[in-house]
Amino acid sequence: MNMPLHGSNPHSLYKTLNIDLPRQICDFSANINPFGPPPALKEKWNEMFTKIIDYPDPEGAQLVSLLAAQDDLAENSILLGNGGAELIALIGRWLAGKRILIIEPSFCEYETACRASGCTIIHHFLEEGNWDLHVEHVLHKLNWADAVFICNPNNPTGQSFSRTAIQGIVEESFKMNTFVIIDEAFYHFLEDEASFVSFVKDFPNLLILRSLTKIYSIPGLRLGYLIADHELIRKVSLFQPHWSVNSVALAAGVECLNSGPFLTDSRKYIEAERRRLFHFYKESGYRFSDSCVNFYLLQDPFLNDQLSLLKFLLEQGIAARHTYNFKGLHGRWLRLAVKRTGDNDRLMEVLKEWRQVQSSL
Amino acid sequence: MNMPLHGSNPHSLYKTLNIDLPRQICDFSANINPFGPPPALKEKWNEMFTKIIDYPDPEGAQLVSLLAAQDDLAENSILLGNGGAELIALIGRWLAGKRILIIEPSFCEYETACRASGCTIIHHFLEEGNWDLHVEHVLHKLNWADAVFICNPNNPTGQSFSRTAIQGIVEESFKMNTFVIIDEAFYHFLEDEASFVSFVKDFPNLLILRSLTKIYSIPGLRLGYLIADHELIRKVSLFQPHWSVNSVALAAGVECLNSGPFLTDSRKYIEAERRRLFHFYKESGYRFSDSCVNFYLLQDPFLNDQLSLLKFLLEQGIAARHTYNFKGLHGRWLRLAVKRTGDNDRLMEVLKEWRQVQSSL
Repeated sequence: MNMPLHGSNPHSLYKTLNIDLPRQICDFSANINPFGPPPALKEKWNEMFTKIIDYPDPEGAQLVSLLAAQDDLAENSILLGNGGAELIALIGRWLAGKRILIIEPSFCEYETACRASGCTIIHHFLEEGNWDLHVEHVLHKLNWADAVFICNPNNPTGQSFSRTAIQGIVEESFKMNTFVIIDEAFYHFLEDEASFVSFVKDFPNLLILRSLTKIYSIPGLRLGYLIADHELIRKVSLFQPHWSVNSVALAAGVECLNSGPFLTDSRKYIEAERRRLFHFYKESGYRFSDSCVNFYLLQDPFLNDQLSLLKFLLEQGIAARHTYNFKGLHGRWLRLAVKRTGDNDRLMEVLKEWRQVQSSL
Repeated sequence: MNMPLHGSNPHSLYKTLNIDLPRQICDFSANINPFGPPPALKEKWNEMFTKIIDYPDPEGAQLVSLLAAQDDLAENSILLGNGGAELIALIGRWLAGKRILIIEPSFCEYETACRASGCTIIHHFLEEGNWDLHVEHVLHKLNWADAVFICNPNNPTGQSFSRTAIQGIVEESFKMNTFVIIDEAFYHFLEDEASFVSFVKDFPNLLILRSLTKIYSIPGLRLGYLIADHELIRKVSLFQPHWSVNSVALAAGVECLNSGPFLTDSRKYIEAERRRLFHFYKESGYRFSDSCVNFYLLQDPFLNDQLSLLKFLLEQGIAARHTYNFKGLHGRWLRLAVKRTGDNDRLMEVLKEWRQVQSSL
């Protein structure tokens, strides 16, 4: 069975599993802000048409300057990318042939990108259920590795690792000449916006990935950025194609960063919905990861492989993300996004039905 | 002097040369269809907003299917790219460490991409003024090389090489196990749309690059494609980031391919304007390349380096493309786009003034 590699595009999931398309599909498989893009983006959309006629500014100077100001960074410590995925590919290219450690389960593109460049890869598997990271458990592997990938908050669990653990890894790695790539693609969803960006100044072995497509709900436009020591940014950028970030993404990025309370409003809403969902899961005997962002892992503990639940949801018009290609999960969980109230209500309703169907068997 | 690497973004040229910005700038430095995008694109622009909320189809299936039908190709012999520049970077990556021949002067990204992947590069320089390509002049170098880059019609001259010459190179290279990359980024502008795409079926050593951003005037969106044997496409695609082509570009591409007589209308208009310009250049003693597309090289034969003319044009609000980073040209020519009637009139007027200023010195 060739399951889709990623969430989003739910039609391919229906096709793979040979399930008839229902009248309506609600896509819980992509980790995108359920609010959609900031209203200012819609308002400025017509003006953006003029942007397509000219080549993009290859440096994206205006957006870089805003991002630098936001995190008190030098502009030359930022590299814009055609989505986080491009920056991961560039990092993989830069690390060609090196030894890579990946904290799993996590986003599968780290491994894909590094394998394409002939890297040797090992994994550290987090304990299923609590998904905690402990420095002492990875020290040996860190010493072996040239670079380690950590997604924080982690995809697919939605959990943040302890600050002590990550700080410990960054410090130990520095001593061992190991690069640390922290993917903060979902950090905007954190109530406290806890980030390791301030460490970049002291740790030239640290690279931080960010995405603007999740929180601002513009994955179609592709927009991410890398933060690191300027010399490292220069090296990685050597592999980047010219004009890599399109001009609509550049203009949209500027609008998004100026969108005022959109970010805090989104966070508050998502947190309230997440609490409501988790309350229901507890009551109904579902297991879930202790997420602090806009997605989480879900498990019906009466099943090992969750395929039958995935299919049941699809038949009811709910597309969840399978976890067959999240290392260590083997389909034992489903990943679901936190969506808007009505959609979440519908999800809970269908999960109630699933309980009833199961108990009547 | 750090001249900009490419045309477009004329402000950086003014900045580098320390010339005050005039009230209006007419950008002759980017090789884009002067008509702008097809009208259908503007009409559908509002609908396209919905595309930014979902991840792009990673395969771009709908657009690939249209492109395949257009050139009678198998869908798996096409790879979409985030602009031609991305595909050039991917080819460079795929050719890592190999020996590369580039027919010069040409687009500088071939060399940049190949150098980033540690290739060894040699050049074959076309004779200045006629810019003809002869198989027998490159045979020895072809034998040495693992791959050769040819831009046809060529950037910056705008001239097409003889069909016999390119066919000879493809055939000889096949015998020598040398890959041939023909960049047809500007082939849409040719009256006869002469292409080597039909050779792909018989020559598994042939790769053809195409762009949709020039003829459809959407360089801000980034959209190109590669045509080659499906096994070669698979190998090159291994280095491509996921979701590399944004969803607005994908949707725009579909609209463009369905835009009816836009293409032939554009060609006719550009050809007429080009004739008018060339007539003027002949009358006024300027040298120019025998272009068959939407740009050409221009030279004031009384100057060696054209910098003073470039500056004069900029002061009059006309941004031309310098040729310092076109191998073999050393700034002895300027590259100019064919624009709309009014803009071309203004250009000729300024060039007349230049003659007067020069003769009064």
